Parts: sequence; structure tokens; C-alpha cells
Amino acid sequence: MAKVYVVYHSGFGHTKLQAEAVHAGAAGVDGVEAFLLTTEEATSRLDELDGADAIIFGCPTYMGNLSADMKKFLEAAARKWFTQSWKDKIAGAFTNSSSFSGDKLNTLVGLFINSMQHSMIYVGTGMLPAASDPDSMNSETGPGPEVQNRVGSFVGPAAASFQVKPPAAPPKGDLETASLYGQRVATITLQFLKGRAS
Amino acid sequence: MAKVYVVYHSGFGHTKLQAEAVHAGAAGVDGVEAFLLTTEEATSRLDELDGADAIIFGCPTYMGNLSADMKKFLEAAARKWFTQSWKDKIAGAFTNSSSFSGDKLNTLVGLFINSMQHSMIYVGTGMLPAASDPDSMNSETGPGPEVQNRVGSFVGPAAASFQVKPPAAPPKGDLETASLYGQRVATITLQFLKGRAS
Amino acid sequence: MAKVYVVYHSGFGHTKLQAEAVHAGAAGVDGVEAFLLTTEEATSRLDELDGADAIIFGCPTYMGNLSADMKKFLEAAARKWFTQSWKDKIAGAFTNSSSFSGDKLNTLVGLFINSMQHSMIYVGTGMLPAASDPDSMNSETGPGPEVQNRVGSFVGPAAASFQVKPPAAPPKGDLETASLYGQRVATITLQFLKGRAS
Amino acid sequence: MAKVYVVYHSGFGHTKLQAEAVHAGAAGVDGVEAFLLTTEEATSRLDELDGADAIIFGCPTYMGNLSADMKKFLEAAARKWFTQSWKDKIAGAFTNSSSFSGDKLNTLVGLFINSMQHSMIYVGTGMLPAASDPDSMNSETGPGPEVQNRVGSFVGPAAASFQVKPPAAPPKGDLETASLYGQRVATITLQFLKGRAS
Repeated sequence: MAKVYVVYHSGFGHTKLQAEAVHAGAAGVDGVEAFLLTTEEATSRLDELDGADAIIFGCPTYMGNLSADMKKFLEAAARKWFTQSWKDKIAGAFTNSSSFSGDKLNTLVGLFINSMQHSMIYVGTGMLPAASDPDSMNSETGPGPEVQNRVGSFVGPAAASFQVKPPAAPPKGDLETASLYGQRVATITLQFLKGRAS
Repeated sequence: MAKVYVVYHSGFGHTKLQAEAVHAGAAGVDGVEAFLLTTEEATSRLDELDGADAIIFGCPTYMGNLSADMKKFLEAAARKWFTQSWKDKIAGAFTNSSSFSGDKLNTLVGLFINSMQHSMIYVGTGMLPAASDPDSMNSETGPGPEVQNRVGSFVGPAAASFQVKPPAAPPKGDLETASLYGQRVATITLQFLKGRAS
Repeated sequence: MAKVYVVYHSGFGHTKLQAEAVHAGAAGVDGVEAFLLTTEEATSRLDELDGADAIIFGCPTYMGNLSADMKKFLEAAARKWFTQSWKDKIAGAFTNSSSFSGDKLNTLVGLFINSMQHSMIYVGTGMLPAASDPDSMNSETGPGPEVQNRVGSFVGPAAASFQVKPPAAPPKGDLETASLYGQRVATITLQFLKGRAS
Repeated sequence: MAKVYVVYHSGFGHTKLQAEAVHAGAAGVDGVEAFLLTTEEATSRLDELDGADAIIFGCPTYMGNLSADMKKFLEAAARKWFTQSWKDKIAGAFTNSSSFSGDKLNTLVGLFINSMQHSMIYVGTGMLPAASDPDSMNSETGPGPEVQNRVGSFVGPAAASFQVKPPAAPPKGDLETASLYGQRVATITLQFLKGRAS
């Protein structure tokens, strides 16, 4: 069994829905046990994360960067950095903000860099953007809320919630993107585990 | 008179339209003379740029980064770096891609970092994202093609063209964003010039 | 009089020394009043910052990014974002870490992006790297602790302290870099103020 | 057999030495066949790269970003993006510049983002920075040219050559870092291949 942890911070509930979708996608893969922890829970269960095969980090983008609550967790986890206890685990990241873009890439790159400091192996969306399929969109308004990877993000799922309260946001397409991402990270984690065992 | 140069590369014409809008916005400011050069033209007129008070760099986002043609120009301009000839000029940046997001932030940050290497002073969009005004959008589909700063970019204007050919793309809102940006950079350049003179 | 605020977080005292040097550099410019606040102090004096002409943000690089304490302040200051109260102020950034490099650029870019969200105008080091002056270094070991801009940073001063406790670290060259930066930001702030007034 | 390709651009020979070290490190792993191609060679052998299990991209940092020659190759390889032919291959990156830091992180992040657009899986240095081992350095001058990961880079090896001509630069420690990185990427590639087969 591969153990996939989703560790998230959510301010208003949008990223929580996204995290649940990532978790559900991972849990649906045969041979995978998936866990869902808030950054607060994860901080008090850091040693448990030593047993993870993958950790996917998710938080909202506030002021163009990862949230302070997520960063607080990453700093608590620095003691795992000193011992490089998370080396060679699979890593992933996702985020949500109000805008289509809104500097979300900076949050994802920040979570990626943190994973590199832990010597983890990073997996992105693995998904072409909606905009590369002309059938998925109205050419004027662009891809709509029901299509996958609406904003066109590669480093990790990036949801756009436009100040709409959950559960009305993030929209269907963004949650499907999150779920497919959980599935992708879990599948790749399983492959790595099998290869290491052989 | 303040001299504002817009230096751009455009692969299929979208960024050209965006560049023309930035140029028009700058040219419309009293006391400003605005110039529009392709990266190719600018490469052969590098010394002329020594007389610029502001340089705004624009190019498409290809494979998540600034275009090779833009980078070729930035490397040709490295001889101005050695002498720091562009020190304290005002700098700006803009980009276009097919998606709402599509890693455009990375292009803008790349153009910003280049401007820091030249010791320039950087000016961003100065505009709240469309998503912060609930009246500007349908809460499901998000801000439409007619509103300003649709994607929610702060470092510089970021247009989304969805494989639609120019002049149908970039849409009206994106070109207005570009024009307001040209106006903003020009106005700040003028202020800075007056302050230096006094 | 131009008012320049230095807002910093320091975990072990290195960034505090760097912040004091930035502050001293700014305070030494005729016509400039300089203030030095921790992120905690600044959080409780947010409205006072509305009167600033420049704000320079500094913090250590932890896990490849700005510190959680700095991020907490930036999120508290988000209410100034909604009203864009800091629009057109001058911004700057600096950081310290244990390594020469150590992902410090990511911290500086994060502080830059935050300043763009506030529609501020960004000023970098304005200094060539030590490595461009062959006389400043031993060609094998590279520039030493006594030279300015030892690591070669453009976006903002980047100190390297190698787990040496303050006041033995950051070294002389890094503190001089910080001081020259404070002076540069203050001088440019004055120019802008004069231009706006005229 | 796992096929590991190193694709590099080198302006003055420093990055070539680094690329050769990465290649040698990979070639030394049992069960791995390693290839070394310039970006020019790789451009004319793009279809051959479809058979790669890993591609490691390397280039100098010029003006704070990947070189125009590397970007030209990445744009030529965009036709592999449309078909996602490189999906799930392992990716890596390395760079060299004159300074300790010198915005090298931006080059590495650019190469990482390109690999995410191709849906590749990213592997970093997996190495603590020299600065975390007090025995590896003089506390004033920091880690010297003979130690591994001197600059403290996590996303990929980052060499510092201080305008010294090759083969005197990059120094011994930087080349060892490159070699260990080639070994790491090759080992992880092998594991992943075995897992996929089972």
C-alpha cells in the first residue's frame, strides 16, 4: 500500500474543497491509502509523515504567495529537513485564489521549492490547459467553470473562485482537476514504490 | 519631454496589438514621447535606448517563459549591463498567452529580474484584478473579455488570447489594460524625471 | 522630508543587523526620516505606514521562502491592499540565509510580488555583483566576506551568514551592501517625492 | 536499460564541463545509458528524445535567466508538448554563472516549469548545502571551491565560476555536485522504470 498525505490550509473553505477532491482522487487508486490533514493537524503529527510515500501541499494564494498558516507548517517541518527524513518522497502542490491568475504560480513554485529542500520528487498536473482544446470553450470568454484546468496551470492545480462562497466555488471543473491530480500523484507514487522494492 | 520605449517581440500578432496599446497609452500622456520597437529593431538601436527614460519589455509566454527572441535581445543588451547605462530608468513588462494563467507570471518575473540587473526601477499594473469587483463579472464564469485586468495580474499586463487570431484577440479588456499600463508607466516616468531635475 | 520605513522580521538576529544597516543607510540621506519596525510593531501600526513614502521589507529565508512571521504581517496588511492605500509608494526588499544562495531569490521575488499587489514601485540593489570585479576576489574562493554584493544579488541585498551567530555575521560586506541599499532607496524616494510635488 | 539524456548549452565552456560531469555521473550507474547533446544537436534529434527515460537540461544564467540558445531549443521542442510525448519522463536542470547566486534560481525554476509543461517528473539535487556542515568551511569565507553544493542550491546544481576560464572553473566541488546529480537522476529514473514495468 502506498500512503498519500494531503496537507492543506484553507481560510474560507475553498481550498478545503479542493483538498478533499485531491484526497478523493488519490484514495480512488487501487493500492493507495490516502490521508487528509490540515496544516495544524500535520504540525502535531510530523513524525507520522515520515511514513508517507507522498505529500501533497495545498493552500490559498494570499498577497501573491502561500498563506502564512502553510508557511508556519513548513517551518515546523524544518526539523525533518535537517535529517532529510522526507527524501525521495513524492511531492505535489495546489492552490486557490479569487482571480484566474492572481500570482498563483508563485505559491506553487514556493511549495515546489520547499519540496526540493526536502529532496522530494515533484509531480505536476500532467494536464494540457483547457485553452488548447478549442471545443472546450467559447473563443471570447475562454474555457468555462465546468472544464478541467481552466486557468492553464502545469505546476499544480490552480482554482479560481471569484469571491463566491463554498460550496458554490471552486467550480466543478476545478474540483475535477484536483481529483485527477490526486489520482496522478497516487499512481506515480505507486510506480516508484514498486520500483524501489524490486 | 520623457522618452518611453516599448520593446516587444510578437510571434503571431497578439503581443503586437498589446504592445501598440501600451505605446498608445504612453503616447497619450502630456510631455511624453513614446516609441515602439520590435526586439530586432531595438537590437540594432541599442545606443538610442541609452537616451530612454523608460523601457517597457513585452513578449509572448512560450513554454512557460519569455520568448527566445526576447531573450536574444536581452542578451544583446547585456553590453549595456556591463556599463550600467540603463541605471535608474523606469522599467515595465507585459505578456500574452493562450490561457488565463499559463505560467505568464514567470515571464513577467523574468523581465523584472532582467530590469533589476540593469538597476532599473520597476512599475507594475497598479490595478486591482477584475475579480475584486463583483459587479464586473458573472460569478460562475468570472470576469469576461471586456473587463480590465481580467486574469488578475499585478507585475504587468497579462493578456489571454485562447488561440483566437488577431485582431479578434487579445480582447478589448486586455487591450485597455495595456493602454492604462502605458499611461501609468509614462506618468510615473515623468514624475521621476521632474524630481531628478529639481 | 521623505519617510522611509524598514519593516523586518529576524529569527536569530542576522536579519536585524541587516535591517539596522538598511535603516542607517536611509537615515543618512539629507531630507529623509527613517523608521525601523519589526513586523510585530508594524502590524499594530499599519495606519502609520499609510504616511510612508517608502517601505523596505526584510526577513530571513526559511525553507526557500520568506518567513512565516513576515507573511503574517503581509496578510495583516492586506486590508491596505483592498483600499490600495500604499499605491505608488517606493518598495524594496532584503534577506539573509545560511548559504551563499539558498533560494534567497525566491524570498526577494515574493516580497517584490507583494509590493506589486500594493501597486508600489520597486527598487533593487543597483549594484553590480562582486564577481564582476576581478580585483575584488581570489579567483578560486570567489569574493570574500569584506566585499559588497558578495553573492551577486540584484533584486535586493542578500546576506550569507553560514550559521555564524550575530554580531559576527552577516559579514562586513553584506552590511555595507545593506547600508548602500537603504541609501539608494531613500535617494530615489526623495526624487519621486520632489517630482510629484512639482 | 534506462536512457538518460543531458541536453545543454554552453557559451564559454563552463556549462559544458558541468554537463560532462552530470553525464559521467549518470553513465556510472549500472543499467543506465547516458547521452550528451548540445541544444543544437538535440534540436535536430527531437524524435530520438521521445525514447529517453530522463532529460536533464542545463545552460548558463545570462541576465538572470536561461540562455537564449536553451530557450530556442525549448521552443523547438514545443511540438513534443502538443502531443505530450515526454509525459512522465524524469526531468532535471543545472546552471552556471559568474556569481555565487546571480539569479541562478530563476534559470532553474524556468527549466523546471518547462518540464512541468511537458508533464515530466522533476528531481532536484537531493543534497544539503555545504553551509549546513560547519566542518566543510571557514566560518568567515564560507564553503570553498572544493566542497559540494557550495552555493546551497536545491532545485538543481548551481556552479559559480567567477569569470575564470575553463577548465580552471567551475571548481572541483561544483563538478562533483554535478556528477552526484547525474547519478541521483539516473538512479531514480531506473527505479521508476522498474516500477512501471512491474
